[in-house]
Amino acid sequence: MFKVALGQMEVIPGRPDLNTAAMLSMTEEARAIHAQMVIFPEMAIPGYFLGDMWEQEAFLRDCEEYGRAVIRASADLCIIFGNVATDWDKVGDDGRVRKYNACFIAQNGQLRGSENFPYPFRLKTLLPNYREFDDTRHFYSLRKLAVELGTSIENLIQPVHLTLNGIAMKLGCLLCEDGWSDDYAVKPISVLQAQGGVDLYINISSSPFTLGKNNKRNRVFSKEAKDAGVPLLYVNNTGIQNNGKTLYTFDGSSTLYNSRGEIVAACPPFTATLAGFDIDIKAGAGNLPPVAITEPSDIETIYQSLHYGISHFLSSIGMKRVVIGISGGIDSAVAAALYTKVVGPDNVLLVNMPSRYNSQTTKDLAAKLAENLGTLYTVMPIQDVVDYTVDQIGRTPITDLAANTSRHLSVSSFVKENIQARDRSSRVLAGIAAAFGGGFTCNANKSELTVGYSTLYGDQAGFLAALADLWKHQIYALAAFINEHVYPQPVIPQETITIVPSAELSAEQSVDAGQGDPIIYPYHDFLFHSFMERWNKATPEDILSWYQEGVLEAKIGCRPGLVQSLFASPAAFIADLERWWNLYNGMAVAKRIQAPPVLAVSRRAYGFDHREAQNGVYYTARYQTLKKQLLAKGG
Amino acid sequence: MFKVALGQMEVIPGRPDLNTAAMLSMTEEARAIHAQMVIFPEMAIPGYFLGDMWEQEAFLRDCEEYGRAVIRASADLCIIFGNVATDWDKVGDDGRVRKYNACFIAQNGQLRGSENFPYPFRLKTLLPNYREFDDTRHFYSLRKLAVELGTSIENLIQPVHLTLNGIAMKLGCLLCEDGWSDDYAVKPISVLQAQGGVDLYINISSSPFTLGKNNKRNRVFSKEAKDAGVPLLYVNNTGIQNNGKTLYTFDGSSTLYNSRGEIVAACPPFTATLAGFDIDIKAGAGNLPPVAITEPSDIETIYQSLHYGISHFLSSIGMKRVVIGISGGIDSAVAAALYTKVVGPDNVLLVNMPSRYNSQTTKDLAAKLAENLGTLYTVMPIQDVVDYTVDQIGRTPITDLAANTSRHLSVSSFVKENIQARDRSSRVLAGIAAAFGGGFTCNANKSELTVGYSTLYGDQAGFLAALADLWKHQIYALAAFINEHVYPQPVIPQETITIVPSAELSAEQSVDAGQGDPIIYPYHDFLFHSFMERWNKATPEDILSWYQEGVLEAKIGCRPGLVQSLFASPAAFIADLERWWNLYNGMAVAKRIQAPPVLAVSRRAYGFDHREAQNGVYYTARYQTLKKQLLAKGG
Repeated sequence: MFKVALGQMEVIPGRPDLNTAAMLSMTEEARAIHAQMVIFPEMAIPGYFLGDMWEQEAFLRDCEEYGRAVIRASADLCIIFGNVATDWDKVGDDGRVRKYNACFIAQNGQLRGSENFPYPFRLKTLLPNYREFDDTRHFYSLRKLAVELGTSIENLIQPVHLTLNGIAMKLGCLLCEDGWSDDYAVKPISVLQAQGGVDLYINISSSPFTLGKNNKRNRVFSKEAKDAGVPLLYVNNTGIQNNGKTLYTFDGSSTLYNSRGEIVAACPPFTATLAGFDIDIKAGAGNLPPVAITEPSDIETIYQSLHYGISHFLSSIGMKRVVIGISGGIDSAVAAALYTKVVGPDNVLLVNMPSRYNSQTTKDLAAKLAENLGTLYTVMPIQDVVDYTVDQIGRTPITDLAANTSRHLSVSSFVKENIQARDRSSRVLAGIAAAFGGGFTCNANKSELTVGYSTLYGDQAGFLAALADLWKHQIYALAAFINEHVYPQPVIPQETITIVPSAELSAEQSVDAGQGDPIIYPYHDFLFHSFMERWNKATPEDILSWYQEGVLEAKIGCRPGLVQSLFASPAAFIADLERWWNLYNGMAVAKRIQAPPVLAVSRRAYGFDHREAQNGVYYTARYQTLKKQLLAKGG
Repeated sequence: MFKVALGQMEVIPGRPDLNTAAMLSMTEEARAIHAQMVIFPEMAIPGYFLGDMWEQEAFLRDCEEYGRAVIRASADLCIIFGNVATDWDKVGDDGRVRKYNACFIAQNGQLRGSENFPYPFRLKTLLPNYREFDDTRHFYSLRKLAVELGTSIENLIQPVHLTLNGIAMKLGCLLCEDGWSDDYAVKPISVLQAQGGVDLYINISSSPFTLGKNNKRNRVFSKEAKDAGVPLLYVNNTGIQNNGKTLYTFDGSSTLYNSRGEIVAACPPFTATLAGFDIDIKAGAGNLPPVAITEPSDIETIYQSLHYGISHFLSSIGMKRVVIGISGGIDSAVAAALYTKVVGPDNVLLVNMPSRYNSQTTKDLAAKLAENLGTLYTVMPIQDVVDYTVDQIGRTPITDLAANTSRHLSVSSFVKENIQARDRSSRVLAGIAAAFGGGFTCNANKSELTVGYSTLYGDQAGFLAALADLWKHQIYALAAFINEHVYPQPVIPQETITIVPSAELSAEQSVDAGQGDPIIYPYHDFLFHSFMERWNKATPEDILSWYQEGVLEAKIGCRPGLVQSLFASPAAFIADLERWWNLYNGMAVAKRIQAPPVLAVSRRAYGFDHREAQNGVYYTARYQTLKKQLLAKGG
């Protein structure tokens, strides 16, 4: 029997000083509960998402120095922690000093494990390089090291021998992705098992929250523990980290699986905590009873992660107050309710900015929302300046200096729509936010971001796009959840939920006349999802062949019968498909390049998680053929 | 003797249809000059920088199909080309279908080389994953394949056996990075040489332009040809490709090195062309006389790449007309001169937008510039709306709905500065550009972008930041070059070059009083360069220790004696250092996340080439110690 403490700490990226302080303090806590071992997450000292800060050698030396402080603290207990390990005598593939994503096992001030490994620390074998991950850019893998040393990977994947509380044990050290080896040619656990196995697996991770990921992890890690017949300890950090364009929350959710693959302990999500457990290692942690994990609903988890992400992001940038433009519509109402919960009503200023196209209906809804939330509120009309701008552009002569002539520009109604949107954000909100001492939010959702249905420097602007990884139907679900579960009474007016979504930028977008967005969310949410979030990204070729085969709705997940009810003919279907595909690959990319950071929730968020080039629109040869066939037939 | 044609084509990323058409047409050209072999660049069919478009299986099938068309065209000549190769039965590390960055050798409608390789094509061995490159994210490497197949890398790096014009030869196929193996444990050329060598190396590349790279490539590839004692043929594409945040030009500059390492043929840079040469392979291409390559000056090369990049980017997004806000200062003047050369004066509208702080001096300089360039010109003052905005924000009551009170915001002079900047870009320029039927440019330089010395949605806005990879001193050099070499007469007024650079956003920034930017370019350009562009990124720790050792100017490259003349004491030096380091890591990151695409010139451009997280400011422990020492000593 020995006591292990899971150090589910909040890792602050790029702050080895603060992270080390947190680790030393948790180590004291672990000592106080008489733990013999404390385990911290992957990259606990430097943090994980640091961009190219890994190219600062001074930073690497600093991390090494802080790592030594943690090692020194291991006088009477074993400390396992993640840190960057630098081999100053070797280079990585980029020619810079070699860095490893490493696991350190310290005991009595010494590092363990060098008797069967070239370094006194262990390396991550599998370096993820998909989605938001850039491991291979920065860190040298065990696979490459094997080639360099002229040895086999098997030779390098060895257990660490430890004696804890008088018990000799073999430890299998995994770093995050090492436990997710399904798609890799090398499977660290299989290698260790083939060599006689270990007594305990630990997996130190820095694994960002993704909706549905914990369920999958419990399946995968349970199976690993059960197949190996030994307990597995998973330690993940909390906090937030970002890659510039995309912001991730880390939920922790550190878990202990026994040798039957049952969950016998789990730390609460999104909470920094130290949790200690007595493990009978010989009995495969069979001394601990299984615990039931009740997963909250998806929408509750989404709410929790958004709240956590917003609150931590605001602290990280030192922002205490926010300004939110509210239109009376659903997106800004949800944003207002969320931020108000995070910073309190005194620190939220809601601003309604009507032009002549805004209905009394939505103006009243905006005021009602502010009243319900009890925030600060103001109304700043934009019509004067919009009129001035349209007039100024139209009346100021444009001089042709070569021909010595002059002429005038004319302002179309589409141009006027964008002038309104930019006036709201770049003139009013940005000015108010600066005067109020805060930032203003971007309330765009994922459906809009997908096709650029927003104005650059207008409603696409803001310091954070907290809702931009949620499809419109998820925004509605979140509104319902907030009204039911978050506030004592519903705060988002019911009519905000039921009126037609509209930008109200022209007479053609009148909510009172039931006229709104060109996006038909019950269908397009799912179409856009298939372009971007689907495992194998769908293109018009796929969409059209599914349409032809009559399996489109099943494939993209929208309501059966919807497609037929929306499009009278293949020609209408194709025109719609091409309209949105053109926008998705065209202007929307240009807009996303200048979009605010997106708070990630889904399995694929815009920004660094979904890399894209401004290359324009492409249709495959087979799409062209399918289209011709369908149009010839269907007309 | 056989004739080889270098197909230095313009590759259009994401357009296999157009690229294949270009290849088939160049193949006809090659046939017309009786070539026996034509070589196209790496990823000639799909293009190279496609973001995550590689996850569209329909696109992969399409590329495969177009590849077949090229193979069929190889009836009587050998076609070598780059394409993505998909192994539909295997997966990559991300679990998606496996993709290789591959080289295809087609002859008489068949693929060559499968007798000693598991596929009928060759793979890139070294996958770059630094700077703008993401190869490992998308493509499976030969190194991983060797592990999977349980064979050695040496076994997989084999020559391709070909018979051309009756001559049997061994071809060494390299893909781009394979020829830059210095920092890698595996060196493809050494492996081939150790196995008996080849008769000819070809290196098909998709290698973006970087200032100084061609010199280095000529050194590296010359040496490779000479050491191996066989000719080396380098084929690179032209055109532009981007990663969203960063736009790259490709200069082609395809080159033939003989077995003595001499350059015997070189295609002109930035020009799509087919060039044929008779090579006596037995004589190591010794039949061709060496040619002298005269490299243009750095500033000429910069001008050439900017002109090329702007012109191709405008075509790629279908933009024919541009609006440029001109202040009378140097950056906007250089932008105006550049764009005018690209699209012609009739398609350029220069806009001066004075507030009360703009001097008559700079207003006159703006008008003079427009006159010199012969463009369209207009003056749209912003003071009315700026005053209106300041007044509206100050006079509109902010209601505290909970307390049933109201209050007013006050607008500081710093807030007023930003209101002016946003009014110019988001209100005036964006509106004018839409009415004019074009886009408006971002004229920021790299020094400003480094420390965020620009306003978000203000002067940082625009569809492209064409000058944002040039330090301020390079902007001056470019102005001089444009005046001397690009136009028949100087177009940028001399005073624009000589006045103090200033934003003219407040009374404290009066150019007539010689008051301007807080950035001292002759020093800060080099300091900022050391943070960001230096091979080992410098941090305050490095700067301070160099300062202490008296080697700072030599280390960062600025004028000797400058630092001492600028800072009277270590305290003053440190205050300046921390001011800019805080901005570089603070607000400037938030601003860059929403910045326009940057046209890359240097060895490190902002955007995808320099990845960064919005993590705030960090000082290492050793910096803190050094600082204490210096302050204690120097006072």
